Amino acid sequence: MTPEEFRRYGHEIVDWIAEYWATLDERPVTGGSRPGDVAALLPPTAPEKGEDFAAILRDLDTVVTPHLTHWQHPSFFAYFPANTSGPSVLGDLVSAGLGTQGMLWSTGPAATEVETVVLDWLADLLDLPARFRSTGSGGGVIQDSASSATLVATLAALHRASGGSWRADGVDRRYTVYTSTQGHSSIEKAARIAGLGASSVRTVDVDGDFAMRPDALAAAIATDRAAGLTPALVVATVGTTASTAVDPLAAIGPVCAAEGVWLHVDAAYAGAAAICPELRWIHDGLSYADSYCFDPHKWLLTGFDCDAFWVADRAELIEALTVLPEYLRNAATESGAVIDYRDWQVPLGRRFRALKLWFVLRWYGAQGLQQHIRASVALAQRFASHVRADERFEVVAPHPLSLVCFAMRGSDTSDGDTEMLHRRLVEDGSVALTHTRVDGRYVIRLAVGAPGTTDHHVDRVWQRVQSIADEMAS
Amino acid sequence: MTPEEFRRYGHEIVDWIAEYWATLDERPVTGGSRPGDVAALLPPTAPEKGEDFAAILRDLDTVVTPHLTHWQHPSFFAYFPANTSGPSVLGDLVSAGLGTQGMLWSTGPAATEVETVVLDWLADLLDLPARFRSTGSGGGVIQDSASSATLVATLAALHRASGGSWRADGVDRRYTVYTSTQGHSSIEKAARIAGLGASSVRTVDVDGDFAMRPDALAAAIATDRAAGLTPALVVATVGTTASTAVDPLAAIGPVCAAEGVWLHVDAAYAGAAAICPELRWIHDGLSYADSYCFDPHKWLLTGFDCDAFWVADRAELIEALTVLPEYLRNAATESGAVIDYRDWQVPLGRRFRALKLWFVLRWYGAQGLQQHIRASVALAQRFASHVRADERFEVVAPHPLSLVCFAMRGSDTSDGDTEMLHRRLVEDGSVALTHTRVDGRYVIRLAVGAPGTTDHHVDRVWQRVQSIADEMAS
Repeated sequence: MTPEEFRRYGHEIVDWIAEYWATLDERPVTGGSRPGDVAALLPPTAPEKGEDFAAILRDLDTVVTPHLTHWQHPSFFAYFPANTSGPSVLGDLVSAGLGTQGMLWSTGPAATEVETVVLDWLADLLDLPARFRSTGSGGGVIQDSASSATLVATLAALHRASGGSWRADGVDRRYTVYTSTQGHSSIEKAARIAGLGASSVRTVDVDGDFAMRPDALAAAIATDRAAGLTPALVVATVGTTASTAVDPLAAIGPVCAAEGVWLHVDAAYAGAAAICPELRWIHDGLSYADSYCFDPHKWLLTGFDCDAFWVADRAELIEALTVLPEYLRNAATESGAVIDYRDWQVPLGRRFRALKLWFVLRWYGAQGLQQHIRASVALAQRFASHVRADERFEVVAPHPLSLVCFAMRGSDTSDGDTEMLHRRLVEDGSVALTHTRVDGRYVIRLAVGAPGTTDHHVDRVWQRVQSIADEMAS
Repeated sequence: MTPEEFRRYGHEIVDWIAEYWATLDERPVTGGSRPGDVAALLPPTAPEKGEDFAAILRDLDTVVTPHLTHWQHPSFFAYFPANTSGPSVLGDLVSAGLGTQGMLWSTGPAATEVETVVLDWLADLLDLPARFRSTGSGGGVIQDSASSATLVATLAALHRASGGSWRADGVDRRYTVYTSTQGHSSIEKAARIAGLGASSVRTVDVDGDFAMRPDALAAAIATDRAAGLTPALVVATVGTTASTAVDPLAAIGPVCAAEGVWLHVDAAYAGAAAICPELRWIHDGLSYADSYCFDPHKWLLTGFDCDAFWVADRAELIEALTVLPEYLRNAATESGAVIDYRDWQVPLGRRFRALKLWFVLRWYGAQGLQQHIRASVALAQRFASHVRADERFEVVAPHPLSLVCFAMRGSDTSDGDTEMLHRRLVEDGSVALTHTRVDGRYVIRLAVGAPGTTDHHVDRVWQRVQSIADEMAS
């Protein structure tokens, strides 16, 4: 494709995306696809000769969009949001066009240094502890996801716990990992990948607000020590997936410090809230953490994949992950004056992902991003008020941010009723909400984050909830 | 950013990229940046209020491009190529604009099914063994990189070797891993991540062409078994990083089969060559493999990240990696009729990366891609002929594909001379080549892959090599 063709088709694709966004609200959120529907629309083999771009563009409207869940839709309230924005898409487009590799500083100096600086900016915006800055012993890096952040934190923790022998000798299966009963599934996955096995993971009891109990953590650690095991890692959660519960870092941190256990804080969804001073309490006690992450690709208008991960001591992470074959040796690396981000992650290669984050921070500025967070929180609180005003329903967990968990009020059949309500609520595809279980109970989650979501969208969900409940009662 | 603003700025960025590509050949490949140069150009904090898009666009030319290694440059011959193309960038742009999540089939049916079908197409184009097709017991998935492919292959191998106990109990450090002395550093990295430690990795001797010796592999396995260890994984390489040596799969495969050891084939760079029937010999014996990967983001005009990874038995991979918390349960998953790609990879979230590969395969067609591979191979062979025609130099390894390793002809000082030649060759930044060691000897690597590279670019490198050698001799 020549630069001229790229220009022409590029404009067409940009226009197509602009039109997609402008018309999102008129579409259903989900399309009711059945397994195999999409595959049936595709030819069995790749073409022998190249096709016209017009044919490719046409299939976006026939094959792709009718069979997607539209995550950018203003009525998408499922899972956690994963919203992007114009500046993020354009930053990512520049990255794709440059096609540069940031595996080493020397293979793309700007790719490395923009990332380091922008993650320092972000640490400032969230008022993270000073030790996470690259100007000290720490530093930030973009991972693809919080799952990968948890994995590299696990590896650095094992490396430290072993006194360095882990690299050569492998993992000691007496190491143990702690998270709350509400911790994310990626914690077990990381423990399995790291060779500890799922049985190494202790799920610590939570309090009435679904936050980790520090006394239960201390007890679990003591029990394991008594059994000859070695506690290596605690993963505390700021904003659990089920209900955005916030583990009390200020109480958990001293337990970890006293025990010499690595503390990783997973704030995948909620961390973005700390851009607003009035919500920074979620990070109280974060200064105890050895590592921390949150996902700008969830609630900070930056497209997936962009997990921002910081460590307090970058040397521990780098020692855990570095391998230096001859073909990657270079003068800059040997000078010790640069960061080679390949040693901060699992893959060797890396895109210039910092561009999209840089574009987002510059286009919106701190104020624009604060406004976005506050708007989401206000919408969630509005929905919670609706729930609370109707005695047939209840809000089942604290909702300090932009997620509300609700259910039909307790009775023997309420669990089945909530599940039926949920099924009927989403069956026409006009809204998307997902469920979880809280204390064993089926609950519906409404998570707000799309920049296009307004009072109208939230109120419409509530009206549907009420009218379905009316029908179910009659 | 409104859809209208996105349209306007999007056109500007598309034009900027077209211009960047059109003028690449006039730029140096590397910019001579010193550590800190880029950071010094950036303000210390993010802006409080949003900036104009014009200011952001301007910084691309002042902060970014002067301080990049231009991987798409026609005179980029370093490492392995990582070339993108117009259709790839546009497919990626659509993916960014849709902002959909393909972690589960149900969270974006088209994202999953297009990926499955396109990887079946690609298996056909490369004539991969039938067992890798999704229509049988296998299937393909896009990983971010060959490093991650090696990691998930390692995990599936450990799961199988343990009879399934690995998931709960962790890794047995008596498992061993085999690759040749020329295997990629990601194999040791995967063994470390998986908790085996670097000491579990055996580097098997190579023959005079730098390919793994099957007899040495069998002997290493026998020695380990005799010592009470359990061989779990062999990673064979098709196209080593140092010299594109091709391990003899047809002889290695039976050793693995007899021993019940998982065979993973890493064809990260070279695999793309198999799109040309005359180069398919590189995969002779691939039917023995349990898993296989190559990187369309290296030599098949698809932008990073796009590693294509196939397994012969998808159930083994999924069992190794799946974790199913309540909040991800859904009817489609429970029906068993769909693929949930989150269980094929380390991260949970995933972009719609298949779009770029789909666009590339359709725009170029099989013939267009074959033409690209053949052109690269021809250019490398042309360069090798130049080297061979000058008695001061020698080609130091077989070069069946598009990488040529060369050095100054043997003498006591030739190693230092080659290193000096290399340093002077790249010091003005007009070309980029990297080095490695082959049999302990310093060699310069010339790797061809950019679609814009022509005879002129390759000949110019050669003329510079000759004139530097002339100067060094005088």
